Amino acid sequence: MPETVLVTIEEILAARKRIRGVVRATTTERFDSLSRVTGREVFLKPEQLQRAGSFKIRGAYNYMDVVPAGREVVAASAGNHAQGVALAASLTGRTARVFMPERAALPKLLATRDYGAEVVTVPGAVEECIVRARRYAVEHDATYVPPFDHPAIIAGQGTVGLEIADEAPAVEVVLVPVGGGGLLAGVATALAAVRPQVRVVGVQAEGASSMRRSVAAGHLVEVEPVTMADGVALRAPSELTFAHAQAFVDEIVTVSEEEISRAVLFLLERAKSVVEPSGALPVAALLAGAVTGDGPVVAVLSGGNVDPMLLTRLIDHGLSAAARFMVVRVVIDDRPGALHHLTGVIARLGLNVLSVEHHREGIELPIASVEVLFTLETRDAAHQAEVLETLTAEGYAVDLVR
Amino acid sequence: MPETVLVTIEEILAARKRIRGVVRATTTERFDSLSRVTGREVFLKPEQLQRAGSFKIRGAYNYMDVVPAGREVVAASAGNHAQGVALAASLTGRTARVFMPERAALPKLLATRDYGAEVVTVPGAVEECIVRARRYAVEHDATYVPPFDHPAIIAGQGTVGLEIADEAPAVEVVLVPVGGGGLLAGVATALAAVRPQVRVVGVQAEGASSMRRSVAAGHLVEVEPVTMADGVALRAPSELTFAHAQAFVDEIVTVSEEEISRAVLFLLERAKSVVEPSGALPVAALLAGAVTGDGPVVAVLSGGNVDPMLLTRLIDHGLSAAARFMVVRVVIDDRPGALHHLTGVIARLGLNVLSVEHHREGIELPIASVEVLFTLETRDAAHQAEVLETLTAEGYAVDLVR
Repeated sequence: MPETVLVTIEEILAARKRIRGVVRATTTERFDSLSRVTGREVFLKPEQLQRAGSFKIRGAYNYMDVVPAGREVVAASAGNHAQGVALAASLTGRTARVFMPERAALPKLLATRDYGAEVVTVPGAVEECIVRARRYAVEHDATYVPPFDHPAIIAGQGTVGLEIADEAPAVEVVLVPVGGGGLLAGVATALAAVRPQVRVVGVQAEGASSMRRSVAAGHLVEVEPVTMADGVALRAPSELTFAHAQAFVDEIVTVSEEEISRAVLFLLERAKSVVEPSGALPVAALLAGAVTGDGPVVAVLSGGNVDPMLLTRLIDHGLSAAARFMVVRVVIDDRPGALHHLTGVIARLGLNVLSVEHHREGIELPIASVEVLFTLETRDAAHQAEVLETLTAEGYAVDLVR
Repeated sequence: MPETVLVTIEEILAARKRIRGVVRATTTERFDSLSRVTGREVFLKPEQLQRAGSFKIRGAYNYMDVVPAGREVVAASAGNHAQGVALAASLTGRTARVFMPERAALPKLLATRDYGAEVVTVPGAVEECIVRARRYAVEHDATYVPPFDHPAIIAGQGTVGLEIADEAPAVEVVLVPVGGGGLLAGVATALAAVRPQVRVVGVQAEGASSMRRSVAAGHLVEVEPVTMADGVALRAPSELTFAHAQAFVDEIVTVSEEEISRAVLFLLERAKSVVEPSGALPVAALLAGAVTGDGPVVAVLSGGNVDPMLLTRLIDHGLSAAARFMVVRVVIDDRPGALHHLTGVIARLGLNVLSVEHHREGIELPIASVEVLFTLETRDAAHQAEVLETLTAEGYAVDLVR
């Protein structure tokens, strides 16, 4: 096997020159709330504010430099890469054809089309889209744009690292979301050159931790990805991105689905920012206490393209994970006044009722009983415990549904 | 009646000096998506990123200058004013007591407490809180901080206008959300002095348009506010803010509840920003085509404090207003295969099914029929019409539920 050639700082500096005036300046800013919570200075690199909603335009635009002028480009993606390639192609006067899973979120399909790409929907997963895109490229003399497995892509994403070095000179740790590893490879390579003392830490979802496992094993390890963070739900990195991680990355940590949804919610409430689940991984790691040290840290928020319908489910999930509401099942007698007595207890507890369901039928329900499901707003886990205790003390059979 | 004394530009300049280093620089930035949609340059003044989540800290902190050192301050509010006063008091070493409606959103109660205030919950509306707060101030020798009816408050909010003049020198129109009118009065007064050629336009919710009606009538007009935009749901401005509007405001426009929810959704999806309904009024006005002219415009986003539970309902409402999903009721025969035939039609239309409800009982339902409620993802109103047409052509009785 030929030795892998790593991307150089010169390539990243050249990429920075190329994308100047094209990408938006997303200035690293201090995040007060998270600094307070973690007891260390936390800065955000807000790539959700980047053009096309994620860092992907950097690599895609830089890649256009290796594509002959006027040549059609082809890509396969369910999300950010699709939009990045579509925008990069239109900015350089190329036509683009993007193969997307037909079950991709409708707003992402429409956004890719809005950037001027021809969108082809494909039954099945991204893997089928890749097969179709590569075949199309061969048959139509077009150029396939890989999502991460190319030096020009890695060099483009590496410009994020250069900007962090300029914008947060005192930074000690940089946290980067990891899927295929293109962003991690670029940022780590850039910082190793210009700020060698900075620790670069990758963050993966527990359910899609192929890079972490690969680094631990010393060779590529595939996983079956299971995570809400669709932007990083990949089976494996490539040999190229893996080699960069081995060379320049200090550590890779993982976070749970609960931690991810709490981070998305935290960013919505405290930073007033919409960050997609994969983009929120670094904040999830900080909130979970998974990042050692107490020096200044930069969290790279990689993107903000989240389907609003998914966002509402994420908020619910995040609120539930943060014990901000609870659903309790209470069995009461089927007689006049029984419900009123129960609502009286809830009122005395000062609880805000979000919804009520009242069921007369239930497989385990004794005759002459009904069950009532209350969704109640709560402050935290201690508050929920207090609610359960009080209802039990009042003689009710209570179940915590969630 | 004594003539009302208007706030001077000197008072606003003095306020700017006082709040320097305390308030955050919320830099006016170009909003590409909305510029494209409206065909004019649109800039956002993002006060949702201000400390305590809204512009309110400006007026509250400036007001502290007229409060004797060490004296307790008192306020009444369901939201942003509460947090602004709590933070301003704690920054100037004062204790604060804030009377809030017991039905105020829990996150707002907790945030106000987090900023160090003593929170007193009061049964009933904000009006009762004001009565309690004023009485407390008299009985305990504390100072009541009004939400908008004071020159020091107006001068503090006016600093937003000075910043816009500096940050967007080419601006021709500035759009400001209007509730009690403190922000509008301050911004209009500042711009009249430093950029007299700029048009200042207030934006109100149709269901809470007291300032617009007052200006039209030439005297204060009260309304019974009905709007999701809780930050501007006021019965009336004060004589003082009204006088400023008469003197310096060029026009006041209104937007509907649908337009507000679409604007909140647009800001979430396109600006990746969480803006509360009242803060989104200017964007609603632009999207609705309610702002004349084609020159550069600045939309003041006044705040981003929105309860996540409310945010999920807002997203649903916004998606529905934008025809991004539809709920249809279809009556089918109660026989094996009938549901399967219907799902086949929906599948051929390429529709993503979000939820299904199947009811056997219904007051208007013929015997031997069942009704099915489908929630379907759609692109826009034209797409919805196409769905209804196709189902009808297939012989189904279809109702658009929403």
